[in-house]
Amino acid sequence: MNILVVSPHHDDEVIGCGGTIAKHHGKGDKVFVVYITAGWSGLPEIKSKEKATKIREREARNACKILGAQRAIFLREDDRNIYNEKGEIIRKLIKIIRDIKPNLIYVPHPKEKDMEHKITYEVTKEAAWLSKSPYLPKLGTPTKSIETIYLYEVWTPMENFFIREDITSVVDVKTKALLAYKSQLEYFNLVDAIIGLSMYRGSMVGTTKKFAEVFQVENP
Amino acid sequence: MNILVVSPHHDDEVIGCGGTIAKHHGKGDKVFVVYITAGWSGLPEIKSKEKATKIREREARNACKILGAQRAIFLREDDRNIYNEKGEIIRKLIKIIRDIKPNLIYVPHPKEKDMEHKITYEVTKEAAWLSKSPYLPKLGTPTKSIETIYLYEVWTPMENFFIREDITSVVDVKTKALLAYKSQLEYFNLVDAIIGLSMYRGSMVGTTKKFAEVFQVENP
Amino acid sequence: MNILVVSPHHDDEVIGCGGTIAKHHGKGDKVFVVYITAGWSGLPEIKSKEKATKIREREARNACKILGAQRAIFLREDDRNIYNEKGEIIRKLIKIIRDIKPNLIYVPHPKEKDMEHKITYEVTKEAAWLSKSPYLPKLGTPTKSIETIYLYEVWTPMENFFIREDITSVVDVKTKALLAYKSQLEYFNLVDAIIGLSMYRGSMVGTTKKFAEVFQVENP
Amino acid sequence: MNILVVSPHHDDEVIGCGGTIAKHHGKGDKVFVVYITAGWSGLPEIKSKEKATKIREREARNACKILGAQRAIFLREDDRNIYNEKGEIIRKLIKIIRDIKPNLIYVPHPKEKDMEHKITYEVTKEAAWLSKSPYLPKLGTPTKSIETIYLYEVWTPMENFFIREDITSVVDVKTKALLAYKSQLEYFNLVDAIIGLSMYRGSMVGTTKKFAEVFQVENP
Amino acid sequence: MNILVVSPHHDDEVIGCGGTIAKHHGKGDKVFVVYITAGWSGLPEIKSKEKATKIREREARNACKILGAQRAIFLREDDRNIYNEKGEIIRKLIKIIRDIKPNLIYVPHPKEKDMEHKITYEVTKEAAWLSKSPYLPKLGTPTKSIETIYLYEVWTPMENFFIREDITSVVDVKTKALLAYKSQLEYFNLVDAIIGLSMYRGSMVGTTKKFAEVFQVENP
Amino acid sequence: MNILVVSPHHDDEVIGCGGTIAKHHGKGDKVFVVYITAGWSGLPEIKSKEKATKIREREARNACKILGAQRAIFLREDDRNIYNEKGEIIRKLIKIIRDIKPNLIYVPHPKEKDMEHKITYEVTKEAAWLSKSPYLPKLGTPTKSIETIYLYEVWTPMENFFIREDITSVVDVKTKALLAYKSQLEYFNLVDAIIGLSMYRGSMVGTTKKFAEVFQVENP
Repeated sequence: MNILVVSPHHDDEVIGCGGTIAKHHGKGDKVFVVYITAGWSGLPEIKSKEKATKIREREARNACKILGAQRAIFLREDDRNIYNEKGEIIRKLIKIIRDIKPNLIYVPHPKEKDMEHKITYEVTKEAAWLSKSPYLPKLGTPTKSIETIYLYEVWTPMENFFIREDITSVVDVKTKALLAYKSQLEYFNLVDAIIGLSMYRGSMVGTTKKFAEVFQVENP
Repeated sequence: MNILVVSPHHDDEVIGCGGTIAKHHGKGDKVFVVYITAGWSGLPEIKSKEKATKIREREARNACKILGAQRAIFLREDDRNIYNEKGEIIRKLIKIIRDIKPNLIYVPHPKEKDMEHKITYEVTKEAAWLSKSPYLPKLGTPTKSIETIYLYEVWTPMENFFIREDITSVVDVKTKALLAYKSQLEYFNLVDAIIGLSMYRGSMVGTTKKFAEVFQVENP
Repeated sequence: MNILVVSPHHDDEVIGCGGTIAKHHGKGDKVFVVYITAGWSGLPEIKSKEKATKIREREARNACKILGAQRAIFLREDDRNIYNEKGEIIRKLIKIIRDIKPNLIYVPHPKEKDMEHKITYEVTKEAAWLSKSPYLPKLGTPTKSIETIYLYEVWTPMENFFIREDITSVVDVKTKALLAYKSQLEYFNLVDAIIGLSMYRGSMVGTTKKFAEVFQVENP
Repeated sequence: MNILVVSPHHDDEVIGCGGTIAKHHGKGDKVFVVYITAGWSGLPEIKSKEKATKIREREARNACKILGAQRAIFLREDDRNIYNEKGEIIRKLIKIIRDIKPNLIYVPHPKEKDMEHKITYEVTKEAAWLSKSPYLPKLGTPTKSIETIYLYEVWTPMENFFIREDITSVVDVKTKALLAYKSQLEYFNLVDAIIGLSMYRGSMVGTTKKFAEVFQVENP
Repeated sequence: MNILVVSPHHDDEVIGCGGTIAKHHGKGDKVFVVYITAGWSGLPEIKSKEKATKIREREARNACKILGAQRAIFLREDDRNIYNEKGEIIRKLIKIIRDIKPNLIYVPHPKEKDMEHKITYEVTKEAAWLSKSPYLPKLGTPTKSIETIYLYEVWTPMENFFIREDITSVVDVKTKALLAYKSQLEYFNLVDAIIGLSMYRGSMVGTTKKFAEVFQVENP
Repeated sequence: MNILVVSPHHDDEVIGCGGTIAKHHGKGDKVFVVYITAGWSGLPEIKSKEKATKIREREARNACKILGAQRAIFLREDDRNIYNEKGEIIRKLIKIIRDIKPNLIYVPHPKEKDMEHKITYEVTKEAAWLSKSPYLPKLGTPTKSIETIYLYEVWTPMENFFIREDITSVVDVKTKALLAYKSQLEYFNLVDAIIGLSMYRGSMVGTTKKFAEVFQVENP
């Protein structure tokens, strides 16, 4: 199976579905991660946008390697400036989807606080159904590959979910991938926060200590 | 200040706001906890409802002691059978509110999955405004004491909240209070789940490991 | 035309659509008002429920006379105790609807705070469609009379509405009808509050001082 | 696989998922249908409740036979009177679920207009999670059998769905099952309405004439 | 009466309200249809945008003629690229509204899946109230003509509606107008899908085979 | 305390929180008002945008003086054309917030009808959390100053609110500030409408005539 993970920023993919990516890899699935923004804003102490972007992409590639993701794709949309780029991002995503032909797509759910997360959801949904439509053939051959869109949680936990993925066996891989985002750990205690959420999601259903990631599902 | 915590079952009060209760106690506030249901269903291996209820109330009193809550009040509504008891529970709560004159009320938020949590929210809201109204004087003297109703999360994390209460200094007290519910730990890994959620709520905002409980607010 | 106004308590009908009732009367329509609850709780200083109920019904009849409503119908459901009476109230309303054959029904909207308002909406909607269905013939001959259900606002202003009824010409009639609820004016400043809301609803659209009542619409 | 279909009235199961039931049968699954209400109100011209209920149950058994459902279970709750029977219905459903151990449950979605449909959703959800919990052992041995709850549409089409089940191959079986409800066809043109909806759901995605039923999914 | 139908793509106007347009025409009303997008993407096999747009407009004019619509107006916004054109489209629509002075406006409802449908709703609502305001006089003389905005359904059926328009007498006209969109029938089975939906909407209320279109209402 | 009021147009700040501004001033707080749009469209009879903008800003400064606001800040975004300016407005607001370091921010709630009000909410929320984040240091030093975001009502009253601010003592100041918007009074009866709403909000809770403004709260 081919898996496409759409991530607004470099680290959201690990936060929301890092364990699940590792499990996909373990089953022999090919995972592709698309990062929407350039990400330079996450390194405020570095003046040069280019330099900051490079650091984040290096970390992202590293995280992808740890999780076993096949390829990291960088759209490099200007940070905090994608509000008017929906059309362009949709077209880029259609190309990628028609090229990769993913069976599953992972994307942040639409009630996330951050506007860039909301927009990521919006453009991914639009790109998903356009990819299977006959429209816009210049962007590639229509594909019916997508079976399910999985919504993941980052800043805002979901009130409803359909899938609880047990990631106990790979929680240390997820932790390691979080640690790959060194530049972000200067600002956020990602490990404690995210491993905490995984413990809540995993341990609320039995008597042993488990870790889980949860997903809502939508059809493409 | 007087604090009233309304809890559908014996343990929801610790899960949702145990750390905050401990902090109220630390500031000299008086905390009263009302448990709506009898709770016997949580001890499925014990045949006698009375015996099971006693065990749960003993655990509840113990948890209250650990948290520093002043008094545990037991309404003992029959488990999984409160769907037709709204009127009666409202009247009982009005009496309690007019007697205790709480400044703050804590209650589960209305999007919780469990119907008994939803009903607990519904009757508490209704009782709160009726308590300050001139209506039903046989249930006590109207009181304008309530300043804020705080909604807490148990099974369903909230998408929006207004207050993030840092409970790092009392997280071990909360853990101890969770452990007081021995009978429930046979069925659920409460400690890992709930401490995990507290880590997520506390550590998502800085670089150190913190624990927090979050609340939405409503006026009475 | 026949008009049915369903009012949870004695005064909601004037607050929500008193001006509109007066205008219906002016056009020769027959207006019937059904009061769901007995209303004794609104007179907390009177010990006897019967006596209190009588006072409220006298005021209600008086308000109806002022507005030109044809008849006041009292269901006398026990105050703050209708949570388990939905089935019974629905059957009573079906009888009334099939008897009166109203063209229009007015009822509080479902987002009102007070649970008795919410229940009034719920039972009226259910009774409206059952009245036109072939079901329950013992409760009268099915009627297709109802064209529209109008939702009115009391404690909670509506975020969306479809109809803005100009009541400038009858605002003093509405005021007089509010004043008929003497017993309630001991507890609430109904006149200033409600005339204030009418001014907001009426004056937000032009340059002159106008009064209006607003309604959302639903089909039966 | 064992399938449980919860149906408020005798015919909702065919309307919402008749084609899907037939397909389950074709794959060798065992389908059980629970009818919540007695159904006598659907035969308004028959005075005796017992007689009317018998006719509806005969039609239901007939429809089940046509669809290949294994067994029809009748809870016989009094029509338009289940508002206070939630606790009782939940207990009955827990028993049935723990006995049948269904892998899938079908139930109307919660935005259906009819209050009896809403209540059917509510009690089924509550019964589903209680069935797997250790609670209420007198109602049978806890079961983790349920994988998915499917929500079906009857009076209110769903704005979102996850599964589109192609029922083209069994649409005539569904039609025949609808026709089994002779008593209801006196009042509603079920066949044209429901086959129309299936055509819309099936033909909106390609160039051939197809029929489909759609479902939203929830976890138990 | 003057009627304005706002249609995101060439065919949505027939799908959502083709029968109602034919009935308006039958009553002597003048119907104007505005098509927002150029529509070339609907003809993916044709390389030239201009040529594709021409074909779609020819089909649209043909459909309008069949339905009896007076005039087709083409805004020709670039397909899948209108996300940043809201301001411009609003200004164009204000001009059209102030020129035509429609009594009624038809537009897709805001929960439609397709982003171009959502945007069409958004800009039409904004243009409607700005048209009656004194603002932007360079775009024409303010008009109070609009009485009601009707929301129609295309890809997403509505959970609530206010108007059920019986189109049985003109269903063959609607079918013929759908067939006018030959280029689209290569990709979608519009006739079976849409006539199916009309059958559901029309036949759910009686015993005869009827066709209907349904609408939610909003004030301008 | 420093207070920031974000106002889409010149007059929304008085309508939504004029009395509260006056009270802040009375307590010695410093109030800054940011006006998003240029406002020329509100003076449709004046041909020159510059001239119209000047008149509105003069009125705004006057209103600020009456209310005791310290400073009026004008972003002068082109009227009815801000749909594509979100990124730019966010950056301007971040600068202002990091400069002023407000403790409280007032902004219209997100269910307001007018798209410019909705956008004002959206950009203010985004700017608020970005201001405290380490991101975008070129726009100023990050500040943790903001304690609460208050949502105010203009065209659409809120169904839920948390704060009811009694403005009885300053209602004549608010009235005077409304009268400062002479140019707008040519088109709207602001005083009767808004004072009416204040009477409703203030008098619904007691027996005396009071005026109030209500607010929902969010954390930054």
